Amino acid sequence: MDYITEKFSKLGCDNAPGQESLQKAEVLPMEGDSIPGTPVDFSHGDVDAHKPIPGSLERFVEGYVVGGGHQAYTEYRGKAGIREYLAEKLAQFSGAPVDPATELILTPGTQGALFLAMGSLIGRGDKVAIIEPDYFANRKLVEFFDGELVPIPIRWTECEQYSGLDLQALEKAFQDGVKLFLYSNPNNPTGVTYSPEEVAAIGRLAKQYNVAVIADELYSRQLFDKNLAYTHLRALEEKPDTLITIIGPSKTESLSGFRLGVAYGSAHIITRMEKLQAIVSLRTAGYCQSAYLNWFSEPDGWMEDRIAAHKAIRDDLLKVVEKYPGCWARPTEGGSYIFLKLPELKVTLTQFVKLCRAQAAVTVTPGTEFGPQFTQWIRLNFSQDHQAAVDAVDRVCQLAMRYQA
Amino acid sequence: MDYITEKFSKLGCDNAPGQESLQKAEVLPMEGDSIPGTPVDFSHGDVDAHKPIPGSLERFVEGYVVGGGHQAYTEYRGKAGIREYLAEKLAQFSGAPVDPATELILTPGTQGALFLAMGSLIGRGDKVAIIEPDYFANRKLVEFFDGELVPIPIRWTECEQYSGLDLQALEKAFQDGVKLFLYSNPNNPTGVTYSPEEVAAIGRLAKQYNVAVIADELYSRQLFDKNLAYTHLRALEEKPDTLITIIGPSKTESLSGFRLGVAYGSAHIITRMEKLQAIVSLRTAGYCQSAYLNWFSEPDGWMEDRIAAHKAIRDDLLKVVEKYPGCWARPTEGGSYIFLKLPELKVTLTQFVKLCRAQAAVTVTPGTEFGPQFTQWIRLNFSQDHQAAVDAVDRVCQLAMRYQA
Repeated sequence: MDYITEKFSKLGCDNAPGQESLQKAEVLPMEGDSIPGTPVDFSHGDVDAHKPIPGSLERFVEGYVVGGGHQAYTEYRGKAGIREYLAEKLAQFSGAPVDPATELILTPGTQGALFLAMGSLIGRGDKVAIIEPDYFANRKLVEFFDGELVPIPIRWTECEQYSGLDLQALEKAFQDGVKLFLYSNPNNPTGVTYSPEEVAAIGRLAKQYNVAVIADELYSRQLFDKNLAYTHLRALEEKPDTLITIIGPSKTESLSGFRLGVAYGSAHIITRMEKLQAIVSLRTAGYCQSAYLNWFSEPDGWMEDRIAAHKAIRDDLLKVVEKYPGCWARPTEGGSYIFLKLPELKVTLTQFVKLCRAQAAVTVTPGTEFGPQFTQWIRLNFSQDHQAAVDAVDRVCQLAMRYQA
Repeated sequence: MDYITEKFSKLGCDNAPGQESLQKAEVLPMEGDSIPGTPVDFSHGDVDAHKPIPGSLERFVEGYVVGGGHQAYTEYRGKAGIREYLAEKLAQFSGAPVDPATELILTPGTQGALFLAMGSLIGRGDKVAIIEPDYFANRKLVEFFDGELVPIPIRWTECEQYSGLDLQALEKAFQDGVKLFLYSNPNNPTGVTYSPEEVAAIGRLAKQYNVAVIADELYSRQLFDKNLAYTHLRALEEKPDTLITIIGPSKTESLSGFRLGVAYGSAHIITRMEKLQAIVSLRTAGYCQSAYLNWFSEPDGWMEDRIAAHKAIRDDLLKVVEKYPGCWARPTEGGSYIFLKLPELKVTLTQFVKLCRAQAAVTVTPGTEFGPQFTQWIRLNFSQDHQAAVDAVDRVCQLAMRYQA
């Protein structure tokens, strides 16, 4: 197999949100009848159940009608006025200043921010430390850019709060020459957050060993417990010399259909990211950029209501899970994911996921997307219609009982 | 310098459309007064002067309002119904069938199509043949993917029609192990097209030497002379085993602000492109995808009027150029570019380009973006307000006289 064929053989997206229709048909070891109920796709959020920030569509129309050519052809890093607006909002949000001219770039979704940041930071053969479990694209990006993956565990199943980051493993990896460390906070798929001490340790070690850091804070506006401190790495005194923070309005704010994201931090990396953007897709769609202007300016109470609605869904899902022996999940601290542990099954995880679709009309993401060892786990995005989600999780747990080893 | 720093030092986008504000200030060897006139930015088209396809905004609104979550979360390769629509249109347009399920992907602009196609075809160290001059991102993409650039000249200044492709150089390159050949037809920046014989030779040689081909046909709907045959490589009997054709509605159709493009061709490469898209930016913005549905279904006469308007601008610009000794351009056969040769200057090309902006309020793209040897050339995108463009080219030519060596 030649280099490029091999490279792409490692990349896959059949289990990614929205991709199920591409999967090959397979004869499944099916037992029993289907369990009827409203179909639910837990692989991504439902923006019909939780609508985009009010006025987003109107912003797009304004960008098209009033902005015209100026809105269509922005700088590759995004329209200056929008960067100025966001720099102020993000400085306030994250607790440290942001220079709109040099330290921020608008990207096509947070995925775009992640791709550009990793492409700007990973040299061929560089060691890259990532958390296991963490967002599935992280490992694929390391492979695509010919980096070497160094997995760092979190022991979230062994603690009641925060991530349980293995700091010894992290320091060992940094000592062994890791160039870049990437983590999502809140963590995807577990929904745990990193404690102030954990984030401080990341900052101290990255500084000490000269490791660049990408902090993926996509879900950092959706935190369920005000008594649990959330720490932005970039706000600390002791932090890495090279640090990029990424965030976007695709999740809590339901703007995924606009493809908006942002990366902010070290100016020399933002410059690289723009150079890369220039050959990747030029810029975030110009008219869509207008919709950034409602982000961080949601109507009074809108964010609070959204967070409360998701907390209520989370609580009800966990009540369902508790009823089924062998099923377990830690309560989500931030974001819309539940990482659900299943009992040992007599079918493979891939088969179970397909059985959920075939027999319960429920789409879930297999845990192995987040680390090869998570063969007994599935991820659920619970940003769904409340009752439909509760019923659907019940069906999934029923199937887990049916296919238990 | 480490690997990644060196890589990015070769990438640049300060001279790219819309990026002028990022350029460093410089003391210019300025002579004489400014020449007053309406500012014109020839680095890209003016979508206020030439509006997007009617109904495009309405399509977006419909995608948002009616499509909702289904429109926001399409498959990474794009919404199935839209792929079916486009496959039919593109099959008809290009003269060969397209399977919407396997042979087509929607991309964020034609730039997105180019990036994904090249990322899917260039292995580290692979030789990649590109035309000189050709679109400036081509060479940057080869460098980014660690390919080795093999330039192939066209001798368009020596012929009155078509590209003057150096077929001997092309065959030599293919014999020497080129894996991928990329060309734009109509050519950017010269506006020349490839003759039926030239395209047939590309097909024959690529087949013979097993070279993959990317045919960038972005401007292929905007052809000015009906007596000049246009050939789609994919419609030929003898064609490469691996062939990707790219096109998009950002230029003639003025939809750049939506970031829409498409790649179609060999299914195994489309599959790779989708895998890459999954880690680059997930998908073309969902609501924007709706606007594809008006493309290739423009109102009766709309495309004809658009082409006629551009032909009229082209003719008037060439009349201006002819008045100035030492200035020269071949009449554009397709697309909206004029590649203008200047007399020998006593300032550098970079300085001349900046002088045009400082003294004539005109933005042009330096020829060196299209090949290092084009130090006496500038590119003009003449999709502008007709009269403003005519006046602006006159000012540029006046400055060329002023700074003549």
